[in-house]
Amino acid sequence: MAELSQIAVVPEAGRHESLKEAVREAGGVVVAPGEASAIVWADPAHPNDLGPVVEQSPTARWIALPFAGVEPYVRLIRQFPDRLWTCARDVYSRPVAEHAIALATSGLRHIVGYARESQWTEPHGHMLVDGRLTIFGGGGIASEIVRLLQGWNCEITVVRRNPRPMDGVARVLGSAEAAEAVRRADAVILAVPLTAETAGLIGADVLAAMKPHAWLVNVARGGVVDTDALVKALVEGAIGGAALDVTDPEPLPEGHPLWVLSNVVITPHIANTPEMGIPLLAAHIRRSVEAWLRGDEPPGRVDPSAGY
Amino acid sequence: MAELSQIAVVPEAGRHESLKEAVREAGGVVVAPGEASAIVWADPAHPNDLGPVVEQSPTARWIALPFAGVEPYVRLIRQFPDRLWTCARDVYSRPVAEHAIALATSGLRHIVGYARESQWTEPHGHMLVDGRLTIFGGGGIASEIVRLLQGWNCEITVVRRNPRPMDGVARVLGSAEAAEAVRRADAVILAVPLTAETAGLIGADVLAAMKPHAWLVNVARGGVVDTDALVKALVEGAIGGAALDVTDPEPLPEGHPLWVLSNVVITPHIANTPEMGIPLLAAHIRRSVEAWLRGDEPPGRVDPSAGY
Repeated sequence: MAELSQIAVVPEAGRHESLKEAVREAGGVVVAPGEASAIVWADPAHPNDLGPVVEQSPTARWIALPFAGVEPYVRLIRQFPDRLWTCARDVYSRPVAEHAIALATSGLRHIVGYARESQWTEPHGHMLVDGRLTIFGGGGIASEIVRLLQGWNCEITVVRRNPRPMDGVARVLGSAEAAEAVRRADAVILAVPLTAETAGLIGADVLAAMKPHAWLVNVARGGVVDTDALVKALVEGAIGGAALDVTDPEPLPEGHPLWVLSNVVITPHIANTPEMGIPLLAAHIRRSVEAWLRGDEPPGRVDPSAGY
Repeated sequence: MAELSQIAVVPEAGRHESLKEAVREAGGVVVAPGEASAIVWADPAHPNDLGPVVEQSPTARWIALPFAGVEPYVRLIRQFPDRLWTCARDVYSRPVAEHAIALATSGLRHIVGYARESQWTEPHGHMLVDGRLTIFGGGGIASEIVRLLQGWNCEITVVRRNPRPMDGVARVLGSAEAAEAVRRADAVILAVPLTAETAGLIGADVLAAMKPHAWLVNVARGGVVDTDALVKALVEGAIGGAALDVTDPEPLPEGHPLWVLSNVVITPHIANTPEMGIPLLAAHIRRSVEAWLRGDEPPGRVDPSAGY
């Protein structure tokens, strides 16, 4: 039986050093996986490498994943449901929420279009201040967007699985009312986890319900949007534009129609850059290990059946 | 002597109809300039046409200008200092403040750069959330920016002629401390009137004091910046970039170096588009005429000596 304080940080990857430091700051001792009570997984890029580590670490009762979206790990989590799996849910909400607002305003304000000009052109633009915003998702990113927009006099609608009221939100609707929810919005921000229920959630019907000047912003996962339906809506001018930090497929291959449409901007999954995220992740791991050493459950438990 | 209620709205220009409507809604009667107690000037484009109208309207004791920046009218205002001149100061603060924030975040977040890519590229970006902002100007636009950023945990410095404290602002400095004021900022927003004192305020010294990742945002007037010094700083990478809604000269001629620099975005003086601004202006004129009919001074008095 491993001591609670014995914690492995693997593999040797980019975030490795700052996460080891965080474990030690919390009072933990960094050990090899075979003798650890917990594993802090430090590599976002190679999900398949984690399976053998978990198998070879029967003493590790808690596995901390360093991301918010854990869909590449869901099979593994379901394979070891007796372990406690946590993710970095809500840890990156602030940078992602800011990026979502920056994308929405740079689209609505036509900054994306002006960035491609080399001459003085005509006035364009719509406001998010005094406007209307619909957010899909009622988690940490949505809460943070609502908080950042508190002075903007923006009427916010949230669409979530369980339509409980939220502070600062004018109305909360269930997923079945997606088309109704976007009808009056100037911008629609996607901030839901990718699950069987949200895959393809934004399809032709929702896009057709949007206003012709409204922008779609995706900071969730590419698979939440039906890409073909989106390209069609953009080509036809059915919506104002799309600002996508995530795509399907991702990375978006060269020559894909989304690269050349004038009413699209793509940022390469950088709402939370490593530079922004690593200090936030290290702080999360420090707090998580502190809880673990106190005998409390670390934050961010993943529900194996829901997949997030 | 003209009745207070007799108000001229000239010339026949784009804003003319909605401003006549606003005068009538306030209880005024629209008359010709020769028999008016006040003139509402409806044309932003032809300042030279106003002189003859004022001369031929000896009964007009109040002249309402429909803009915030009245520098093309200052000579005329000084020529008729016995009249009350008002401008639309603070009327467009909300759209302009939103545009300033949109420009700052689209620069810092590298959205401007990504908008010009046609392939998946590397992570870039800095946050304004949890960052530092310096605003030149302590008027309506600055106050509105501070209000919009209230949830952003952004440390704000304001530089103004009279360094009185401002709500929500960490420190207020005088113009002599401009270089010191920008030293730690992630973004610098210009929101001052163009006067003899502010012309060329942002020169080589201030630019040299800025951080290499910091963006300069101009929603004031092009002449506040020394354009040659700015181009030099941008070419050398001394600052992160420039997001300019106003330029000197303006419109910026084709082939100007600012059009081709990768760390620049230019929007064509559209922080407040006609679509956004006309309803705001009409509401301002309605409130102004209501004050005039009550015998109060309408808002937005221009100080002929200060020039704003």
